[in-house]
Amino acid sequence: MNNKHIIIEEQGLRDGFQTLSKTILTQKKLDYIDQLVDAGVTRIQVASFVHPKLVPQMADAEELCNQLDKKENVIYSGLVLNLKGVERAIAAKLDHLSCSISASNTHSQKNARLTLSEAKLAFKKMVQLSKENHITVRGGIQCAFGCRYEGKIEESHVLDMVDHHLDSGINELALADSTGMGNPKQLRELMQKVVEKAGDIPVILHLHNTENKGYANLYAAIEAGVQIFDTAFGGLGGCPFIKNATGNIATEDSVHMIHQMGYETGIDINKIAKISRELETTLGHKLPGQMYQLIDNNDIKII
Amino acid sequence: MNNKHIIIEEQGLRDGFQTLSKTILTQKKLDYIDQLVDAGVTRIQVASFVHPKLVPQMADAEELCNQLDKKENVIYSGLVLNLKGVERAIAAKLDHLSCSISASNTHSQKNARLTLSEAKLAFKKMVQLSKENHITVRGGIQCAFGCRYEGKIEESHVLDMVDHHLDSGINELALADSTGMGNPKQLRELMQKVVEKAGDIPVILHLHNTENKGYANLYAAIEAGVQIFDTAFGGLGGCPFIKNATGNIATEDSVHMIHQMGYETGIDINKIAKISRELETTLGHKLPGQMYQLIDNNDIKII
Repeated sequence: MNNKHIIIEEQGLRDGFQTLSKTILTQKKLDYIDQLVDAGVTRIQVASFVHPKLVPQMADAEELCNQLDKKENVIYSGLVLNLKGVERAIAAKLDHLSCSISASNTHSQKNARLTLSEAKLAFKKMVQLSKENHITVRGGIQCAFGCRYEGKIEESHVLDMVDHHLDSGINELALADSTGMGNPKQLRELMQKVVEKAGDIPVILHLHNTENKGYANLYAAIEAGVQIFDTAFGGLGGCPFIKNATGNIATEDSVHMIHQMGYETGIDINKIAKISRELETTLGHKLPGQMYQLIDNNDIKII
Repeated sequence: MNNKHIIIEEQGLRDGFQTLSKTILTQKKLDYIDQLVDAGVTRIQVASFVHPKLVPQMADAEELCNQLDKKENVIYSGLVLNLKGVERAIAAKLDHLSCSISASNTHSQKNARLTLSEAKLAFKKMVQLSKENHITVRGGIQCAFGCRYEGKIEESHVLDMVDHHLDSGINELALADSTGMGNPKQLRELMQKVVEKAGDIPVILHLHNTENKGYANLYAAIEAGVQIFDTAFGGLGGCPFIKNATGNIATEDSVHMIHQMGYETGIDINKIAKISRELETTLGHKLPGQMYQLIDNNDIKII
């Protein structure tokens, strides 16, 4: 990849919407997806295949996937956390999946009801089934930089999990700072090692701004050679421990900073900001992103 | 200075409070100052000496300074933008002042009613009068990384102003990203040059999070060798162009990130977070800082 190019995977539809109490209708989701593609986004995580009782906002995953107006050169991906999810995604005809497990044993037991060893075994089976069905697999590690139950996650442990994932035959590797606990120094050092280990396998980073370090971590990871990032328009995506907390790093804020630093993404932040403003109106409260509010103001200069 | 030490100058009382519509009483300000000192803060900008009609929240500057319970090893500073301000600060017995002008000609004309040349001349007179009165002078450059009227501010122009300030006999040099328009790449490159030019003169950076880049810029500037930063508890401090916009980088969020990266500040973020929670209650709305909300939650780990 051209080293001045950064790719954005939009997570608003999944990591963003899953925390909203207001239901977003399938038709509205499809409309947002079209707007994102029109804005130049080339990777979109459209849904997760999880239990509808646990995440009601994702109950329409199949319906959404069946109605997708798929464009060439755009990756429409789904999140799966177990074999059942992979089976559902295959039936929904997705050809790109994010299979993900946690680096934290406690988090894995609480969220997936699996010990870390069990989760690693389950992960291999998810990858195998996906690949048998010609699906491109993004293999993810949640809580790679810290866990709200366990605290610090040791670097050596994360690197072991990276080896495990790479051995599983994944096509892409993703690390997630699910809790926003990572700091730029730690992240830069760790991601340099991960990028080196991964070799030709693209490395993706998923960042949350929960502790206001999300954009510092984005900068640090770019310096470490990471070229693909998950973001969510408006900075959607919550934290179960703070009501209305800031969520994922915002697509428009991230892209704005990335462009300012001389990289290109192919994304028009004005069009992303328009989606965020529309959602702000729908939800009736401000979103954590800053740029969508500034872009709406014609009296000021933005550089 | 030990290169693992970072100094924080608290700006909440001045840059934070000046944008609040609710009046904070002098006695309450004095209480906040005592709490900040107790939390380990060693530099506090307590007020600005500007026209009370323009900034009503600072109308009690003299009264506040007269009632300060000054502790040894704590710098109590004031902001001045003209000679009249210096005279008032001298009368109020401050021994540390921040004299500041803008790098943007348009901003200078709109805010200080001075062209850039006039402002530079006025700056020299402010420094001279301060020094004649044995005051330590922090010389500041506002809008050093971007201006909402002019857009980009050229690096060469900022470096010329740095030379001008250093020639004026200042004791410390401060650059401000008043608008939050700077990006980490630009800031790292520029601050490396500024630190080199300044030599033994300490360099201070004042950052706003208006475009969500404040903490990325903090990280970049630390990498560039800057060791003193302005912050405001709770992330107080507005932006005239967005209602309830995020303001200065938050003291507790900044210190948290700084500590995580292996630097020390001497500041107890739990005590800062307590101040922010108290102010949240007083104001009746959330502040932009994230850490004060997380710290209040005993069920989660913070690393």
